Order: sequence, then C-alpha cells, then structure tokens
Amino acid sequence: MNFTSDNAYGAAPEILKAIAEANAGAAVPYGDDEITAALQRRFSKVFERDVAAYPVLTGTAANGLALGTLAPPYGAIFCHEQGHIAVDECGAPEFFSGGARVVSLKGTDGKITPDAIKSVLPLYQRGVHSPKPSVISIAQATEFGTVYRADEIAALAHLANSEGMRLHMDGARFANAVAFLRCTPAEITWKAGVDVLSFGASKNGALCAEAVVFFDKAMARDFEYRRKRSGQLLSKMRFLSAQLLAYLDQDRWLNWARRSNALAQVVGERLSMLPQAHVIVPIEANEVFLALPNEQVRALQRAGVQFYEWERNGERTIGRFVLSYLTPDEDITKLVQLLQS
Amino acid sequence: MNFTSDNAYGAAPEILKAIAEANAGAAVPYGDDEITAALQRRFSKVFERDVAAYPVLTGTAANGLALGTLAPPYGAIFCHEQGHIAVDECGAPEFFSGGARVVSLKGTDGKITPDAIKSVLPLYQRGVHSPKPSVISIAQATEFGTVYRADEIAALAHLANSEGMRLHMDGARFANAVAFLRCTPAEITWKAGVDVLSFGASKNGALCAEAVVFFDKAMARDFEYRRKRSGQLLSKMRFLSAQLLAYLDQDRWLNWARRSNALAQVVGERLSMLPQAHVIVPIEANEVFLALPNEQVRALQRAGVQFYEWERNGERTIGRFVLSYLTPDEDITKLVQLLQS
Amino acid sequence: MNFTSDNAYGAAPEILKAIAEANAGAAVPYGDDEITAALQRRFSKVFERDVAAYPVLTGTAANGLALGTLAPPYGAIFCHEQGHIAVDECGAPEFFSGGARVVSLKGTDGKITPDAIKSVLPLYQRGVHSPKPSVISIAQATEFGTVYRADEIAALAHLANSEGMRLHMDGARFANAVAFLRCTPAEITWKAGVDVLSFGASKNGALCAEAVVFFDKAMARDFEYRRKRSGQLLSKMRFLSAQLLAYLDQDRWLNWARRSNALAQVVGERLSMLPQAHVIVPIEANEVFLALPNEQVRALQRAGVQFYEWERNGERTIGRFVLSYLTPDEDITKLVQLLQS
Amino acid sequence: MNFTSDNAYGAAPEILKAIAEANAGAAVPYGDDEITAALQRRFSKVFERDVAAYPVLTGTAANGLALGTLAPPYGAIFCHEQGHIAVDECGAPEFFSGGARVVSLKGTDGKITPDAIKSVLPLYQRGVHSPKPSVISIAQATEFGTVYRADEIAALAHLANSEGMRLHMDGARFANAVAFLRCTPAEITWKAGVDVLSFGASKNGALCAEAVVFFDKAMARDFEYRRKRSGQLLSKMRFLSAQLLAYLDQDRWLNWARRSNALAQVVGERLSMLPQAHVIVPIEANEVFLALPNEQVRALQRAGVQFYEWERNGERTIGRFVLSYLTPDEDITKLVQLLQS
Repeated sequence: MNFTSDNAYGAAPEILKAIAEANAGAAVPYGDDEITAALQRRFSKVFERDVAAYPVLTGTAANGLALGTLAPPYGAIFCHEQGHIAVDECGAPEFFSGGARVVSLKGTDGKITPDAIKSVLPLYQRGVHSPKPSVISIAQATEFGTVYRADEIAALAHLANSEGMRLHMDGARFANAVAFLRCTPAEITWKAGVDVLSFGASKNGALCAEAVVFFDKAMARDFEYRRKRSGQLLSKMRFLSAQLLAYLDQDRWLNWARRSNALAQVVGERLSMLPQAHVIVPIEANEVFLALPNEQVRALQRAGVQFYEWERNGERTIGRFVLSYLTPDEDITKLVQLLQS
Repeated sequence: MNFTSDNAYGAAPEILKAIAEANAGAAVPYGDDEITAALQRRFSKVFERDVAAYPVLTGTAANGLALGTLAPPYGAIFCHEQGHIAVDECGAPEFFSGGARVVSLKGTDGKITPDAIKSVLPLYQRGVHSPKPSVISIAQATEFGTVYRADEIAALAHLANSEGMRLHMDGARFANAVAFLRCTPAEITWKAGVDVLSFGASKNGALCAEAVVFFDKAMARDFEYRRKRSGQLLSKMRFLSAQLLAYLDQDRWLNWARRSNALAQVVGERLSMLPQAHVIVPIEANEVFLALPNEQVRALQRAGVQFYEWERNGERTIGRFVLSYLTPDEDITKLVQLLQS
Repeated sequence: MNFTSDNAYGAAPEILKAIAEANAGAAVPYGDDEITAALQRRFSKVFERDVAAYPVLTGTAANGLALGTLAPPYGAIFCHEQGHIAVDECGAPEFFSGGARVVSLKGTDGKITPDAIKSVLPLYQRGVHSPKPSVISIAQATEFGTVYRADEIAALAHLANSEGMRLHMDGARFANAVAFLRCTPAEITWKAGVDVLSFGASKNGALCAEAVVFFDKAMARDFEYRRKRSGQLLSKMRFLSAQLLAYLDQDRWLNWARRSNALAQVVGERLSMLPQAHVIVPIEANEVFLALPNEQVRALQRAGVQFYEWERNGERTIGRFVLSYLTPDEDITKLVQLLQS
Repeated sequence: MNFTSDNAYGAAPEILKAIAEANAGAAVPYGDDEITAALQRRFSKVFERDVAAYPVLTGTAANGLALGTLAPPYGAIFCHEQGHIAVDECGAPEFFSGGARVVSLKGTDGKITPDAIKSVLPLYQRGVHSPKPSVISIAQATEFGTVYRADEIAALAHLANSEGMRLHMDGARFANAVAFLRCTPAEITWKAGVDVLSFGASKNGALCAEAVVFFDKAMARDFEYRRKRSGQLLSKMRFLSAQLLAYLDQDRWLNWARRSNALAQVVGERLSMLPQAHVIVPIEANEVFLALPNEQVRALQRAGVQFYEWERNGERTIGRFVLSYLTPDEDITKLVQLLQS
C-alpha cells in the first residue's frame, strides 16, 4: 500500500503506447516535428484560446523557466511558504531568474491571499532599494491538495495587475483541480487572470512531461532561448509532445484525475475514523493530510501502509497520503480492510 | 533639523584630510600599496587576531560579497524580515551568491533568535529538494538601532555551527554597537562565533568605505576574484584604505559612534515627551523609532524637522530619527527648544 | 534518406522495452530506486573504477551541470570554437556555472591542442584581473566526428593538471569514439586524465538519457543540489536509469556505435566519388563532412537526400551527413544506387 | 619615473577640492541631491543631447552594468581579445548580465572590425542553439592606446544595427580619444551610432568616478535596479557626482587628456631612439607600447624607470608606458636625460 507520492507509480499504458507510436521513422529534431505542432493546436483548443505551449521535462524546470521569463533578476516572487517553488525545488526560481527573491508567505490550507501579500508588499516597494514585486505564484492544486476557487484566483490576479506583477500558476496537479471544480481549464486560468501556467502531467500518468503555457504569446518573448540554455529542449521532442497529446486526448487527463481525487475521498474518510485521527486540511484533490497519534503511525507502517511523515509535533504526526490514478484498486481494498479490522 | 539618515551628512574632516594625504606621489594600484598593507595590520590589531580584511566601496557590496563567499548558489540565508540585506539591497545577496535563497524571519526589535530559525529550518532540510541552510546573517546594530548582546550572538553561532552554517554580521553600524556595549570588537565578533563581518564606516563619517573582515582567512578563499568581478576592487585603492585607517586611528570610529548614540538618547527622550508619542524599540544605537499621531508628524515637519516616515497605521505614524556624529549641535538645540515650546 | 542528425531517428526498441519493464509497480522516486542503484554499479564496472554517475535528461544539461560543478563563476573554460558547448547550447556553460567564461579556440579537425590553449593562457593568468583558468573541455568524438587519441587526451590532461585546471569530456558521441579506437572506456577517460565525462546515449538509441560521470567522487561535491535546482532530477528516475542500463547491457551501446561508424565509412566513400567532392575531415565516428559544388548539393536534395548545410563558401557547400544506428539499411542502399546512377 | 599605469598617480587637486566643497551640510542620499541633478544636465550639455547618465564607482562596474543592461543572459557580446572587458575584469560582463557569452576577436592595434565580427557571426546565428548576438563592445581609446575614427565606429554601429545588436563603448580613456581626434564627444558616440558609453574619469584625474551614459533613455530601463543591486549606488552620491562635475567643468577632462597624450608623444619619440627599440602600435592616446631587447628592459629598470612588461617573446619584451596628466614634469625630464646619456 504505497501512498507516499504521486511519483511512486510509473506511467500510464496509454502514455507508453503513444511514445512507441511516435517512434516510427525520422522526424525533425528539437521541436520542429509534426507531433509538437499538433500539440500546440491541441493546447489552444483545450484552453479555448491561441496559446504558446512549450513542453519541458520536469515540473521544477517548468516552474523555473516560467518564473525566469516573468521575473527580472531584481524581481520579487510571492508564494506560499510551503509551496513547491519555495521549498521543494532547491532554489530553481532563483537559478532560472538569475537571482530574483522568493518571498514566502503564510496561509491557511496552503493558499495565499491578497491580504497576505499586501501585508508585506510595502517592504518591497521602496524604489530601487528593494527587490521589485514581479510575480505572484500559486499552486493549483496546492501542496496540500486544496484548490483555489476561480474568484480567489481573480482576486490575486487583480492585485497582481494593479501592482505591475504577473500571475503564475504551478499546475503540477492542475488536472486534479479542474476535476474537483468541474470547471473548464480556461475558467481558472486566463479567464481568471493567470498569465502563465506550468501544466503538469508527470504526477498524473505521464512518464516525464510538463508544459509551460503562455496565455499571452508576447510574454513568451525569449522563452525558447531560456529553455535551450537550461537543457530542457529535448532533441527527440516528439517523445515529449506525444506524451502530452495522449494525455490530453479523450479527456484522459481529467478522467485520471477524477479517479485519484475519488480515491483520496475514500482513503480520507476511512483514515479519519481512526481513533484520535483527524483530517487537517479539506480533501479536494488527490492528497490526504491526517494528524495521528505516533503509535497509530507505527501501527499503520507495521501493517505495510507507506506514506510520508510530513511533520512530527510531540505525540502526534501529520501523515501525507497521496493517491495516484495508478494506485491499484487492491491497495485501497487492503487499506479499507485493515482499517475495519 | 535633518534626522532622515546616517547618510544625510557628509564625511568627517579627518577622513577628507586622510584622503588628501594619501594623494602624494605614485602608488601601486589595485591594493598592493603600503596604506592598504598598513590597514590590514591595523584591522588585525583592532580585532586581536590575524584577520583578512578587504576594503570595498559600499555596504551593499560588503554584504553581497560576504554572503556570496559564504553561501553557495543553492544555499539558504536566514535573516530578519526587515534587515538591510532583506529589503534594502535590491536582491544583492542573490546577485552576489548566484541565486541563494534569502529567508526572512520575524523577530522583536529587529533581532532574530535561534528559535525563529529553528521554526522554519525543517522546510530547508529536505536533502537536495530545498535550498541548503548555509548562512545566518544578523545586523549589529540592527535596522532598528537595537544591539545584540554577546550571548545572543553566541547562541546564534552555536546553532549555525551545529547545522553546518556560517554566521555573518552586517556591521554597517558596528561602531555604534561596540560603543553601546562598551565591549571589545573581538567580544561580539569572532569570540562570539561570527565568521565574517561587514565592517561599516560610511554611515559614521567616511566618504565611502567599508571592509569585509574574515576571521578565518581560509574562508576568504576566492573573495578577491569575486571583488574584482563585481567592480569593487578600486584602482586607486589607497584612497579607500586611507579612509579606513583614519577611521580606526585614535579610536575615532568609537568616539564618533559614542556621540551619535548619545544624541539619539537625547532626541529620544525629548520626543517621547510629546503627547501620545512613544518610543517603540529600545534606543541603543543612533536611531529613534517613535509612534506619533499623524497630526504631530505634520506639526514637526512644518517646524522643519526632517525624518523618515517608516510606517503609517491609520491615525498613527512610526517615524525614524537617525543621528549622525556629524549632526550639528544646533540641530539638537533647535529640536529641544521646539519641543519645549 | 535522412542524414540530418543523430536525433532524426527515434529510440531503439530495446530502450522502449526497458522503459516498459521498469513500469511495474511502485518505486521510490527521485533516484532512490533499485534500477538507479544497479546503474551506479554498472557504470563502475564499465569504467573499471568506483565512479559517481548521475543520470540527466539532455546532453546540454549534462555538459552544463558538469562544467558548473568544475568551474567557479569567475573561472575560464577552454574549448574548440565549434564545440557543442561553445555554439550549440545557447550559453549553458555560463548559465550552469553562474557566469564562467567560455574561451573558444581554433583547431584542426575539431580538436584543440595544448599549444592552442597555451597561446591564450597568459591572457587569463593576470591574478584576479582575468577569469581564472579552470576547465579544459573536449568533445569525444568531436563535433566533426573526429576522435582524440589517448595520448592527445593525456597531453591535455597534463596541461590541465599543471595549471590547476580540470579536464571535462563531452561524450555525446562517446560510444562512437570507443568503437572507433577499439579501446576500453577507461583508457580514454580517467586513465588518460579525464576528470568528468558527459556520457551520451540520446544520440545513439536512447529516448532521452545522458549521465554525468565523476571519476573522483569527491569532485561531485554539490552536484546533486545543482541537478535538482536545474530541473534535471527526474521524479520517476527509474525510467531514465532503465534506459541507460539497457544501453550498457550486452554491449549494445558499442554495437550500435559500430554500426553507425561503419555506415559513415560507406556513405563517405561513396559520396567522395562525386565529381569535385571531397571529404574535408577524416571520417572516424558517425559523421561525414563533405565539400560539394552547390549544384551537386541541389541535385542530391532533389533526389531526396536530406542533410545539413554546414557552411556555404561561394560556389561550394560543406554538407554534414550524420549516420545513426537507426538509419535504415534501405536508405543506405538507395543512396548507393543514386550515386551509381 | 613611474609609467606603470593610469592609476599609479592619485587624484587631481581640483577633484579633491570639489569633494571638500560638496561636504557642506546635509543632502538627500542615494542620488536625489542637487549636485547629481546638476551633473545630469551637464552631461546632456556635453553630449548635445538629453542623456541618462548614472555615476558609478569603478570602470569595471560601469562596463558590467552597461553590458548587463544591454545583453540578455543568453546574449553574445563581441569584443577585442585583449579588451578590458575580455581579460581585465575577471568576468564582470558575465556576472552583471547573468551569463552572456563574451566572444573575443583578433584585431590589429587593439581594434575590431565589422569583418572580424562577420567572420564568426554565423556561429552565433543558429536560432536558439547559440547565444544570441546582442552587443558589440569597443574601447575608445583601446587597451593599446589607439583611437577609433568616427567612420570606423559608424561601420560597427551599422553592423550592430542590421543584426539586432547594440553598440557599447568602454570609454575608460574617452577623454584621451576626444582630445586626440579633436572632435566633439557627440561625434564619436551617438552621432556615430553608439548606444551606451562607459564614461571614465578615474584614469584621468578623478579619485573614483565613472558614469554610464545612455543616449537613448529608454534603453536605461532597469539600470537603476541593477546599479543598486550590485552595490554601486553610493549613499553619499554627491561625492561621486561632484568629482564628475569638476572633471567636466572648464574642459578640465580634455585639458588633462591633452597633457597625457602629449607626454606619450614625447616619451614614445625618445624611447624609440633606443637601439633596436621600436614602437609597435601607433601612439594616439596616453600609452606607448615598445618592443625592446631584454637587456634594455633591465637597464631601464636599473635606472629607475618603472613600466609594465606586457609580453615577453624570447629575447625581446614589449613594455607598456602609460602617461597620466599627473605624471610629474621631472619624471619626463629625467627620462629624457637618461635616454640622452
């Protein structure tokens, strides 16, 4: 029963099949192939707008390249203190931007609010003396599996706009957010004011594939130079584009996310019935955060339940349980049986 | 009555005299001159230890170069959220380090504590996933004119040491701190565990002169390459070294700091007698932070009192009054008279 | 008949099979899986030494990360003026190193010599005034498909050593070089003085897989932080390691390189029989560089022969023909027939 | 007899006087003072155009900041292989630009030509694969004391323009060039197509003062953020501006340069009469490059003549003799007497 990470399980068979099919014959390398062109069109259709979408290899690279394009070296980027860009990418925002400041903010359930930003903004509005406010970056779904509503996003976009900043969305779990909200991809991105999206696929069935999506093509300016320079322009690009195309095809991405979201509901419900256990953030996407007595943690582990110990506070531990579309049914069944016994 | 900044007033006559005297004849450029060699010896004497001291031109450069030497590009630097390196140097730590993370912490009276650092440290101890904890940086005196006691510094050094970090001290107002504590320079630096000091002179009578002081020469490794590369190696270095030598000579630096500290006591005492006014942080160095009703602020300004409006909260304003050794006596007298009337 | 690039053709079936097999069940993400551990052991066996090998996603990243680890920001890197790191990676060495200088040198057949480096070295030995000589970087095989002999490498290593530099080898076509020289991998790397190797697989049958191989593990110091920070630490690392393991298995890498080398000999031989055509650099690996009258170029293109126009000089063009292990036999047959007609 | 460097001698008395006069009373720090405003107007008058001029502290910083503003991190900068930015600033262009490529070119008498650039340009015009040609940077006067004529500059500007690049001029010895050409400052800068000038004063009588002059203010965009971030925004800016104002006042800068140019003519003439000695580049500004038998070098040194040994080739040495406006008359007299004896 492995609930440690979205990345514990591998790739969906449909993705591997698409890779194998893309392997026929020769193709122009470095992205001038037909599959990549088709992907571009597909993304525009998915987002109901003519977008510029660039495939890259990892989520850290997607975020780094997006932020490096939006923020100048002397810029400031506002995000949640536990966001992936804040503490799980080893300073990629600084690396790709050439030294922009990442400003970490507290916020309930992994979300930041306009008020949280406004509370520190004066510190970064001292003319040339402070790093220049440049980007607000939010994760959708968040690191805690919660989901921003369209109006929450719009409020952040409004602040960004009025202060000369851009709004970036880390969509490593974007499919889970769309699936949860039952909205269109457009409604929680450009229609709500998002400028650039890191569109994730690796955590939801792809082998390794993400895309940086610019809703205003003019903002993509020099993106391709930055992608090449950072070693993210795949020579055999068709293999990257083919994964994303298969992922978007037949609404697979949303169907897969629906499954992992649903599994999270089941797992969360059952786990929270454990004595003294309680779910500490609302379960909206594919993650369950549960506070447990330490002895319960050890009991689960002895029974073969694998999960990430997020934080330990004295007698209690917060465990993170992540569900994947590829989590086998039998793992869920076994967990349920275990908890009933 | 100008109390806006340490930098509002110019250079001490003794400093200008030293520059003029250094101007005789030819000298080897770029720091291989005799004045610079003498300065090196003087710094070692002042600190009771064989130190490596490098003159640079501004405080931002001193801090940036010190931090860039101590922190790798993938490192994390912990400091107070209102520290100069945090919000007054436009991202210099990121620039000089090649992209290290600056982590801002809250703390009473402008100081940070081991506990404040420990509360966020787990976020930065996730192996290669998070920026690596590398430096603790404190200002002595702080941005608010408060002064770390030797044991407070030692506690931070202990934490730094046990977690594989270095301790940097931003000493833009170092003279004021030493003067306030009536200690030796060594006691609040290397004897308390400080690894590198940005030794300031510009805010206390120099024209433009700071020095980066390494207490362990081995840590200075590649400092000289970094200084050259950033345009901080002065060709006519003797003019920089001469300022610092004159500054250290005859205890001028401490005498000057004693004067500005004393003026701050006088000004603070008088200002706090204003109706509804109160000093919001202890006055230890040469700064007074005072909360005032807005109408009082306007009245002072109308009367010709210049100061910096640090923060406005509704009906009240926090004013910052900075005293310099060069603040004329008559300004103090005028202020006192004004407040008595 | 596509001879444009090593990357025109896709992935070997054996590689895709390895990926599919790696897909079973759950695994620890980010490189702590068993396949990656097995790869580590395999690399040590291949190189007859306990090495530290880190899988990454592209050749540009492998070179950038290797150079960024070896060269300080103030360092200088010496390479051939037409090397991949010089003009095909959009400044990746500067990006990954935080601003080291790339010094381009002329050299026959794509190779650099100790003398070429010595001729410019004094410009970079002015103490802190010039970038500090830090790395010699050579490509094996070179951009022109020529191959350094072991003694040529040793001579460069000797110079590197005596001047405090490191020797890096860009082995995007390393298999072709080993196949051509009929030597062991060790003989042209650490035994000849190479410190770090970018070990390529993508150009020779992999989907996307390279590795950075440190022969002295101590030099790898902070490599893992740099890899993570640049978005090159794959979450589902097993898919990357599986490719490399399959590539090394059963000497596939060398067999595949032998085939593409042999095809280059055939193609070179036949093309050079064209009127006024001549091969301009020795054909040693899998590339043919041929000077042709422009009308011949057009005739070939009309007949469906695709290749890269490397350089045009008036009436003549230098064409580059690259052979892949995956170049179909029928393409060769068709080309031979075409040239005979 | 010290002819080692422009920086061997100190500051002109007029400059020190200006500093002393600027020291009266309080002033707004960080460049919002009246002297800095006056300097802005003066620069516009000197250049017959409304320019944006930013004082900085060293020549390396002036060049680095200018290039960092003009070149993106993925850009390429073309310059002479012995230019100051190439080999005397320890990689400052890379540092300030965040990793642009410096491309070194050969060229007679320290100058580069459009043809030299065109010969390598194709290597940097491979779309996203190569660093993007962004800046041509020339020194006026050059590192060898030669001077570009207006039409030579215009030809480089034409090339820059037609290839989407900017033209930067390193004017560390700009006064010497204007004095030699007897032209207006405008004629060899913006009228000839220069976009940005590093205007030097330190080598010609200032204590430490340079300025970056943008002829198109729009190009200065984010310069002030970059200056602050690199520790080049002086708190007591009036002292920097006062030097430059005094330098420009009463045509001092040109008069001083006329003197050092004239001294170079005298020294060059006399030295070249030494047996087997010959001047190797035309003496146009304040430098003399002389090839001498090694025994002559030793004889001069024994007689107390100090100069820089630029290069040694077997039996002969190239010596560099630099004249300053501050070189004492008696040194010249002594040298002349020595050579006559």
